[in-house]
Amino acid sequence: MARPRPLPPYDLFYWPSIQGRGEFPRLLLEEAQAPYVDVARQPGGMPRMLKLLKEARRGPRPFAPPFLGSGNVLIVQAANILLYLAPRHGLIGREERARIAAHQLQLTVTDLVAEVHDVHHPIAGSLYYEDQKPEAKRKAASFVKERIPKFLEYFEAVLTDNGGKRMVGRSFSYVDLSMFQVVAGLDYAFPRAMKRLARKTKGLRALHDAVASRKRIAAYLTSPRRLPFNEDGIFRAYPELDG
Amino acid sequence: MARPRPLPPYDLFYWPSIQGRGEFPRLLLEEAQAPYVDVARQPGGMPRMLKLLKEARRGPRPFAPPFLGSGNVLIVQAANILLYLAPRHGLIGREERARIAAHQLQLTVTDLVAEVHDVHHPIAGSLYYEDQKPEAKRKAASFVKERIPKFLEYFEAVLTDNGGKRMVGRSFSYVDLSMFQVVAGLDYAFPRAMKRLARKTKGLRALHDAVASRKRIAAYLTSPRRLPFNEDGIFRAYPELDG
Repeated sequence: MARPRPLPPYDLFYWPSIQGRGEFPRLLLEEAQAPYVDVARQPGGMPRMLKLLKEARRGPRPFAPPFLGSGNVLIVQAANILLYLAPRHGLIGREERARIAAHQLQLTVTDLVAEVHDVHHPIAGSLYYEDQKPEAKRKAASFVKERIPKFLEYFEAVLTDNGGKRMVGRSFSYVDLSMFQVVAGLDYAFPRAMKRLARKTKGLRALHDAVASRKRIAAYLTSPRRLPFNEDGIFRAYPELDG
Repeated sequence: MARPRPLPPYDLFYWPSIQGRGEFPRLLLEEAQAPYVDVARQPGGMPRMLKLLKEARRGPRPFAPPFLGSGNVLIVQAANILLYLAPRHGLIGREERARIAAHQLQLTVTDLVAEVHDVHHPIAGSLYYEDQKPEAKRKAASFVKERIPKFLEYFEAVLTDNGGKRMVGRSFSYVDLSMFQVVAGLDYAFPRAMKRLARKTKGLRALHDAVASRKRIAAYLTSPRRLPFNEDGIFRAYPELDG
């Protein structure tokens, strides 16, 4: 009879040079102190990741990174990875109701992240930003004026509805981590817009600061594992797009 | 002691004049023959829906429709609703692995649907299509040439990987319903592009046809409950955007 083997660490697969959508699972793994390998950042990792895009051995083949290998399952899509990991690591309650509520908010983060990306790529992801600058500028104007306020005032209202300290439930959850990342990313990409919104997003700011100062997150943020924001990622500092 | 009350029917909340994102839960409810009320299409339903956008009594307030009332829980975001409903109605297995795999594919459908919307609204959702036609035309060119093939060839590969009949697992699931809707919507909005892709998407076409001829779905599609596609929805027939 085979002896039970210890569970291997998680394999996180994501593009090695940007935070992007991989940062949401990464923050959870760091807060949970879960052992994981950031595969594409290891020697030989990129080909391993690209190969998995054509394989269906551990679930349907992925459309795109991020995905997470956990034993014999591959979990694909950032929000799906969080849904899977969070109850295993105490970053959401195990009751269905809590998981559904958290996932609702994470899917709204997903929507926002897609919109942020499209601000600098309104015409096509396959074109350079430089090839769609006039359109990006026009899109950014409405994004800064309408969409950032709509999303952040919504998240602020959710936080306030829930008592002002946590996005969902009474305990710290992965949604709080995701909200930190949203605020950090928007700070980087749209500092002027964020400054104008400061008065209406005091709760989110306090949450951002509280997450940043959590012991494990603070250690992570100053480690080489945290990639800096940059202009290949989703949140990009293009001053001409910042209102 | 209170007597147990029978579960009320589900309340589905979505904009009353378009299929949009509400169509994915609607197809599941129809296939499951689950009793539901399409609330915003009833007299007085719209104000009821709009009021819920400001309430946090049954979970975090929604960012936008669709959402589903089920007893004392409100489930928000189309993919989240499907995640909740499908195992209850035999439209996905109850094992975590099956639910994760199906959700992966549904989240990829969600991504595609967002891109389809943005083809006719590349600059801002708050502007009319008529106010962003040149940008839409430019975006449509890359969408038709790159994105539709990328998504559909991906879904075709997933279907093929899985034996060619079902998107996930061995039994019919809600992902098959969603794939029907994707093909139907793209047929409506991009008939020329879809014709060009016919040879590479034979499995998806067969799946689409098989879903359309399922007894309950066929009855639904010819009922007044199925709204026609139209140019207020996500899939819009603008010939100038069809390559």
